[in-house]
Amino acid sequence: GLRYGRKVRLFHSSSLLRDAPPLPQASFFPPSEGTMLPPHSFQNRVAFITGGGTGLGRAMTHGLSELGATCVIASRKLDVLQKTAEEITAQTGNKVFPLQCDVRDPQAVTQCLDQMEKLTGLPQVVINNAAGNFVSPSERLSPNGWRTIVDIVLNGTAYVTLELGKRLIQQGKGAAFVAITTIYAESGSGFVVPSASAKAGVEALYKSLTSEWGRYGLRFNIIQPGPIRTKGAFSRLDPTGAFEESMLGRIPAGRLGTPAEIKNLALYMCSDYATWMSGAVVRLDGGEYVSMAGEFNDLRKVTSEQWDLIESMIRKTKGS
Amino acid sequence: GLRYGRKVRLFHSSSLLRDAPPLPQASFFPPSEGTMLPPHSFQNRVAFITGGGTGLGRAMTHGLSELGATCVIASRKLDVLQKTAEEITAQTGNKVFPLQCDVRDPQAVTQCLDQMEKLTGLPQVVINNAAGNFVSPSERLSPNGWRTIVDIVLNGTAYVTLELGKRLIQQGKGAAFVAITTIYAESGSGFVVPSASAKAGVEALYKSLTSEWGRYGLRFNIIQPGPIRTKGAFSRLDPTGAFEESMLGRIPAGRLGTPAEIKNLALYMCSDYATWMSGAVVRLDGGEYVSMAGEFNDLRKVTSEQWDLIESMIRKTKGS
Amino acid sequence: GLRYGRKVRLFHSSSLLRDAPPLPQASFFPPSEGTMLPPHSFQNRVAFITGGGTGLGRAMTHGLSELGATCVIASRKLDVLQKTAEEITAQTGNKVFPLQCDVRDPQAVTQCLDQMEKLTGLPQVVINNAAGNFVSPSERLSPNGWRTIVDIVLNGTAYVTLELGKRLIQQGKGAAFVAITTIYAESGSGFVVPSASAKAGVEALYKSLTSEWGRYGLRFNIIQPGPIRTKGAFSRLDPTGAFEESMLGRIPAGRLGTPAEIKNLALYMCSDYATWMSGAVVRLDGGEYVSMAGEFNDLRKVTSEQWDLIESMIRKTKGS
Amino acid sequence: GLRYGRKVRLFHSSSLLRDAPPLPQASFFPPSEGTMLPPHSFQNRVAFITGGGTGLGRAMTHGLSELGATCVIASRKLDVLQKTAEEITAQTGNKVFPLQCDVRDPQAVTQCLDQMEKLTGLPQVVINNAAGNFVSPSERLSPNGWRTIVDIVLNGTAYVTLELGKRLIQQGKGAAFVAITTIYAESGSGFVVPSASAKAGVEALYKSLTSEWGRYGLRFNIIQPGPIRTKGAFSRLDPTGAFEESMLGRIPAGRLGTPAEIKNLALYMCSDYATWMSGAVVRLDGGEYVSMAGEFNDLRKVTSEQWDLIESMIRKTKGS
Ligand SMILES: NC(=O)c1ccc[n+]([C@@H]2O[C@H](COP(=O)([O-])OP(=O)(O)OC[C@H]3O[C@@H](n4cnc5c(N)ncnc54)[C@H](OP(=O)(O)O)[C@@H]3O)[C@@H](O)[C@H]2O)c1
Ligand SMILES: NC(=O)c1ccc[n+]([C@@H]2O[C@H](COP(=O)([O-])OP(=O)(O)OC[C@H]3O[C@@H](n4cnc5c(N)ncnc54)[C@H](OP(=O)(O)O)[C@@H]3O)[C@@H](O)[C@H]2O)c1
Ligand SMILES: NC(=O)c1ccc[n+]([C@@H]2O[C@H](COP(=O)([O-])OP(=O)(O)OC[C@H]3O[C@@H](n4cnc5c(N)ncnc54)[C@H](OP(=O)(O)O)[C@@H]3O)[C@@H](O)[C@H]2O)c1
Ligand SMILES: NC(=O)c1ccc[n+]([C@@H]2O[C@H](COP(=O)([O-])OP(=O)(O)OC[C@H]3O[C@@H](n4cnc5c(N)ncnc54)[C@H](OP(=O)(O)O)[C@@H]3O)[C@@H](O)[C@H]2O)c1
Repeated sequence: GLRYGRKVRLFHSSSLLRDAPPLPQASFFPPSEGTMLPPHSFQNRVAFITGGGTGLGRAMTHGLSELGATCVIASRKLDVLQKTAEEITAQTGNKVFPLQCDVRDPQAVTQCLDQMEKLTGLPQVVINNAAGNFVSPSERLSPNGWRTIVDIVLNGTAYVTLELGKRLIQQGKGAAFVAITTIYAESGSGFVVPSASAKAGVEALYKSLTSEWGRYGLRFNIIQPGPIRTKGAFSRLDPTGAFEESMLGRIPAGRLGTPAEIKNLALYMCSDYATWMSGAVVRLDGGEYVSMAGEFNDLRKVTSEQWDLIESMIRKTKGS
Repeated sequence: GLRYGRKVRLFHSSSLLRDAPPLPQASFFPPSEGTMLPPHSFQNRVAFITGGGTGLGRAMTHGLSELGATCVIASRKLDVLQKTAEEITAQTGNKVFPLQCDVRDPQAVTQCLDQMEKLTGLPQVVINNAAGNFVSPSERLSPNGWRTIVDIVLNGTAYVTLELGKRLIQQGKGAAFVAITTIYAESGSGFVVPSASAKAGVEALYKSLTSEWGRYGLRFNIIQPGPIRTKGAFSRLDPTGAFEESMLGRIPAGRLGTPAEIKNLALYMCSDYATWMSGAVVRLDGGEYVSMAGEFNDLRKVTSEQWDLIESMIRKTKGS
Repeated sequence: GLRYGRKVRLFHSSSLLRDAPPLPQASFFPPSEGTMLPPHSFQNRVAFITGGGTGLGRAMTHGLSELGATCVIASRKLDVLQKTAEEITAQTGNKVFPLQCDVRDPQAVTQCLDQMEKLTGLPQVVINNAAGNFVSPSERLSPNGWRTIVDIVLNGTAYVTLELGKRLIQQGKGAAFVAITTIYAESGSGFVVPSASAKAGVEALYKSLTSEWGRYGLRFNIIQPGPIRTKGAFSRLDPTGAFEESMLGRIPAGRLGTPAEIKNLALYMCSDYATWMSGAVVRLDGGEYVSMAGEFNDLRKVTSEQWDLIESMIRKTKGS
Repeated sequence: GLRYGRKVRLFHSSSLLRDAPPLPQASFFPPSEGTMLPPHSFQNRVAFITGGGTGLGRAMTHGLSELGATCVIASRKLDVLQKTAEEITAQTGNKVFPLQCDVRDPQAVTQCLDQMEKLTGLPQVVINNAAGNFVSPSERLSPNGWRTIVDIVLNGTAYVTLELGKRLIQQGKGAAFVAITTIYAESGSGFVVPSASAKAGVEALYKSLTSEWGRYGLRFNIIQPGPIRTKGAFSRLDPTGAFEESMLGRIPAGRLGTPAEIKNLALYMCSDYATWMSGAVVRLDGGEYVSMAGEFNDLRKVTSEQWDLIESMIRKTKGS
C-alpha cells in the first residue's frame, strides 16, 4: 500500500488492502448494529435529514424511521433519495419523503421547506448532515474549490437552520437539531482546509443558536465522527485506500466506526432522553483525536524491554 | 432571595425559593425519567461506581442494576451505601454490594478492589463519580482545604483508575470507564477553584489513558454535568439557594437537569452501543456553558421593539 | 443607560455614558501606548494589512511602519485608506500604500496582490484584519445578511491567504500571517451568529495551514480580542452604548482594551522573536472570556460578611 | 537511532543523533536570542521564579534581571540556585536571590515567602515554572509516582499562588502571574499521564483565579511550550534521544524551540504591555500541536506527482 514515505507504491494491486484489517484490540470493541432506543421513540414525529440518501444520513434516517418517525430526506440527487426512501419505507413501514434540494441555494431551501410543510408539517428533528469534501494541497485550491465546500457545509447548514428556525419560532414549536461535523473542526487539518473551516463554522453556528434560541424550545448538538467507511467520504478523501491503513494504527479502538454507531448517538441526541442536552459537541472516533494530539503517544511503539532500560536510565538522572 | 447585588437578603424566608420555578421554555424540554437502553443491556456485567450511594452515583447505579448489572458501590459512609444497596436490589432484583472506601487512600483502594475481586471479579463498567467540593473565595482557602478536594477528585480518581487498569490489563479484560467532571473544568471558575483544577486533571487523565490503554481493551469517557439538584452538591455549593435562581436565567433549557438524564447518558457511554467512543467529553447542561460563555448572549434581554430601533441605528452607520 | 431589563431606557441622554468609567481595579492594569519591539524590527520588510485604514488595522499598520516596515493597506474605501496612509507616512517616514480591494471578490484580491507585487514585492507580514459584523436576532437574518458576513470574514480571509500563500510558495519566500478573530469564535454567541461562525472558520483555516504550509516557511497565528472601542466595531455592535456598561462588570481587568495593546501583541507575533510560534490562538481580552464562562463567577457579588455566613452553613452540612 | 518500530536500536552510538538536525524549513524560522522588551522594562520590580535555577526558569530569570528586575529564584537545590544567581547577577548587575524551597511543602512555601518579603518585599511578577515529569507506561505507575508529580506541578503551583495571592490582596498590591504548562495539557498524553493531569489542573487554576482575583489587581496567564532541549526535560522524557528525531518531522517550524523564545513571550506577558492579558493560554510550539492533531496532516508525505494522480481519481468519482 501507499506508505507516504520516500519509496511509495501509490495504488493497491488489489482492493483487499482498502479494507485494512482491524487491530487486535478491536475484538474488545465490537460494533453494535441494532437500534438502542425503545420502539416508537419517534412515533408521531417528523424528521428532516439533509444528505439522507447515502452514508451516515441514510443510517440515521433508517433509525428514525424504524422508531416511528416520518422522515424527509433532501439532497441534490433525486434518484438516489427515491431509492433510499423506498427501501427504508419498505423495511420500516413508515413514510420517507425524498425532496430534491441543493442546500447552497437559499431559494431551493425555502421551496424544499414549503414542500415539506405541506407533506408533513415542520419537523421535531433536524439533522444537518449534507456535506462536500475532498483532499487537496491548499496551494492547488481555486477560489471556486474553496467556495463550493463552504457553500455546502457552512452556508447550506445555515440556510436550512435559519429558515427552519424562523418557521418553528413563528409556529411556537420546539425541535432538536443535530449537525455532523468532524474531529478536525477544532484542530484544523491540512489537505482538507475548506472542510475544516466550514465545519468549524457549523459548530459555532450551533453553539450560538443554543444560547439564542433555547427560549423558543430549540436545541442544537453536534457529532464529530472519526473515520467511517462510506462511499461518499472515502472516494474523495482516500481514493487510493492507503490512508486508511495508516489511520488504524493511531485509533485506540483499533477499527473504523460504523454508520450504526453514529445513528445511535444521533438518535439519542434527538430523543426525549436528551432534552437537557444543548450546545454539546460529542466526539465519536474510537479515540483517534486524543491519540493523535497527545505529544508522547508515539511511545506506544516502545516495547516492554525497552521500557525497562528507559526506566533505569531515568532513575540514574540526578534529582527527583 | 439573595440577589448578590448591593441590597441583599441572604436567606430565604421559605424553602419555596430554593426550588426556583423553571422558565417557560422548559415545557419544550421535559425530562425523561425512564431508562433508555434495552433491558438486559448490562446482564452478566459487573459495574463499579464510586460515590454510588447518593445523588448522581445512586441514579447511575440504579440504572445499571435495572439493566442487569451486578453493582459495587464504594464511598466513605458505609451506612448510606448499605441503605442504597438494599433499596436498589429490592427494586431491581440484582445484587448491589456496598464497600467502604476512602478514595484518597491508595491502600484503602487496593483493599476495596481486592474485596470486589472476591465478590464479583473485575468490573466491565467503572464510574468515577465520587467528589468533594464547596464554595469559597480562594483567599480563604488553606493548603489543607485545597488538598482535600484535589485528593478526592483527582488523586482518588487516579488511584482507582490506575489500580483497576493494572488488574484489567493483567487479566486481559476490557472495560468502559466514565468519569463525572463539570462544565467549569475547561473554563475554570472562581470560588470553586480546587474542584475546577482537580476536575480538569481528571479530564486529562482520561484522555491520556484513552490513547495509552485502548490497545488493552479499555476506553474512557467523560460527562460534564451542568447543575442538577442533589443534596450533596447543593448543600455545599448553594447553601442559601439563591444561586439556583440566578442560574436558571442563563440556562437555555430553562430548567435544572435531573439525575435520570445523567444516568441515561452514562449508561449509553458504558454500553455496547458506544464501544467506539473513547476520549470523548460530553457536556450535558441544558446549554448553560455556551450560554454563559458567548459574549453577546445578554442581548437576549433586548425586546423586539428595541431591536427595531437598534436595527435602524445600525442601518444608518456608514459602510456595509 | 439601557439596562436590558424590564424597564429600559434605550438611548443615552448624553454621550458620557457611552464611555462607561472603568472599574477601580483598572488602575492596576494601565494600558501602555508605546511600541514594545526594538526600533527597526521590521526594517526592509513589507507588511500587508487588510482593513488597515481604521481601528485595530490602523493601529497595527502604524506600529509596523514605525518599526521600519513598508506597509500596504487594503479595503473598500480608498479615501479612508489614503488619509490613513498619508498620516502614518507623515509620522513614521515610511511608505504606506493604499490599495482598494473588496476581499469578497477573488478577482479583486488577485488584482490587489498584482499591484502590491509591483509596488513592494510580496510581504513578509500579512494581517487578515478586515471584517464585518452587526448585532441581530438570528430569526431576523436573511440569507443575504448571513452571506455578507461570511463572505467578508471567512471567504475574504481565505482568498487573501490562499492567493498570497501560492505566490510565496512559488517564490520560495517565508512569511508570518496573523488573523484577528474574536473571543466568541470558540463558544459561539447569539446575536452575532454569522460573525461567530465565520471567525471560527478563520481559526480552523489558520490552524490547518500551520500544519500544511510550515514546510514552506509560512506561519499562522490568531489574536482573539475582547472589546476595544473602535468606531467600526461599536457602531454596529453597541449602537446605544448600553452594552459596554454591562460588559465592564465582567471584565477582570475592569476596562476595555486599547488598539495599542492589540498592536503590540500582533507585532510580537509577526516578529523575529516569535518565529517558533505557529498555530497559536491568543486571547487578549482583560480576562472577559473565562470570567463569563466560569459557572460560579457571579459569586463575586457576595460580600465578605455573606461569605462568613455561607462558610458556617457549609461547615454544618454533614460529611467533609 | 531508536525507530520505535519493529526493529529498533535503543541507544545512540554517538551523541550526535541526540541533536537531530533541523528540517530545511527551519532556515525560515531562525530563533532570536536577544531580549525583545525595552531596557528597564522591569526596573524597580521584584520577580519570583520557581525552578529559576535551570532550563527555562533560568532563561526567564536572566531576561527579567537584564531588564532591571530584582529576582528571587526558588527550588530544592540551593547549590544550583546559588550558582545561577551569581552568574546572572554578574552579567546583569541586578540582584538575584536564591531561596531553597520544595514547593510540595506548604510550610516551606510560607517560610520561603516570609524570607522573600524581608529581602525584597512581595513580587510584581510571579512565574510558576517548577515541575517534575518522567516517561512511563501508566500501568507501571505507583500511587507514589503519581502523587510526586501532582504534588510538585499542581499542588506546588497552588500553594505558591494561593499564598502569594493572599499576601498581595492583603497589601493591596497587583501582580502578573505566569505558569508554564505544556501542549499536552488539553489533549492529554499517554506515558506522561501524571504530568498531563497536573498541568491541566494548573491551567484551570489560573483561569479560575483570573476571574476571581482580577478585581484585586492580579492577572494570570499560561505558556504551553512545545519541545525545548533542556537538560531537565530531556533526561527524563527522552533519555535515549530517539524521540527527538521523530518529533522534528511533525513540527511545522522544523526545529525545537529555545529557552530564549519562551523567555521573550513570558516577559511580554508579565510586562506593562500586556496588562490587559489575563486568562490567556498561549501555545509556543513551532506548530507541533495542531500538526499532530489534524487528521489529514500525514498527507504531507504525498508527493506532487502522487497528488496529480489522486486529483484525477477524485475528479472521476461521481457527483461534485
Ligand atoms: N464518513 C466519514 O468518515 C465521516 C467523518 C467525519 C464526518 N463525516 C460527515 O458525515 C456526513 C455524511 O457523510 P458521509 O460519509 O455519509 O458521506 P456521503 O454519503 O457523501 O454524504 C454526503 C451527503 O451530502 C449530500 N450533499 C452533498 N452536497 C449537497 C448539496 N449541495 N445539497 C444537498 N445535499 C448535498 C449528498 O447527497 P447528493 O449527492 O444527493 O447531494 C450526500 O447524501 C458529512 O457531513 C460528513 O462531513 C463523515
Ligand atoms: N449535582 C450537580 O449539579 C453536579 C454538577 C457537576 C458535577 N457533578 C458531579 O457529579 C458527581 C456526583 O455528585 P452529586 O451531585 O451526586 O453529589 P453527592 O451526592 O455529594 O456525591 C458525591 C459522592 O462522593 C462520595 N465521596 C466523597 N468523598 C469521598 C471519598 N473521599 N471517598 C469515596 N467517596 C467519596 C460521597 O459519598 P461519601 O460521603 O459516603 O464518601 C458521595 O456519594 C460528582 O463528581 C460531582 O462533582 C455534580
Ligand atoms: N473592536 C473590537 O472590540 C473587536 C473585538 C473583537 C474582534 N475585533 C476584530 O478586529 C478587526 C478590526 O475591527 P475594528 O474594531 O478595527 O473595526 P473596523 O474599524 O470597522 O475595521 C474593519 C475593517 O475591515 C474593512 N473591511 C470591511 N469589509 C471589507 C471588505 N469587504 N473588503 C475589505 N475590507 C473590508 C473596513 O474597511 P472598509 O470599510 O474600507 O472596507 C475596516 O477597515 C476585525 O476583524 C474585528 O472583527 C474587533
Ligand atoms: N523543556 C521542555 O521541552 C518543556 C516542554 C513543556 C513544558 N516544559 C515546562 O517548563 C518548565 C521548566 O522545565 P525545564 O525544561 O526548564 O526543566 P528543568 O530544568 O528540569 O526545570 C524544572 C525546575 O523545577 C524545579 N523543581 C523540581 N521539583 C521541585 C520542587 N519540588 N520544588 C521546587 N522546585 C522544583 C527544579 O529545580 P530543583 O531540582 O532544584 O528543585 C528545576 O529548576 C516546567 O514546568 C516544564 O514542565 C518544558
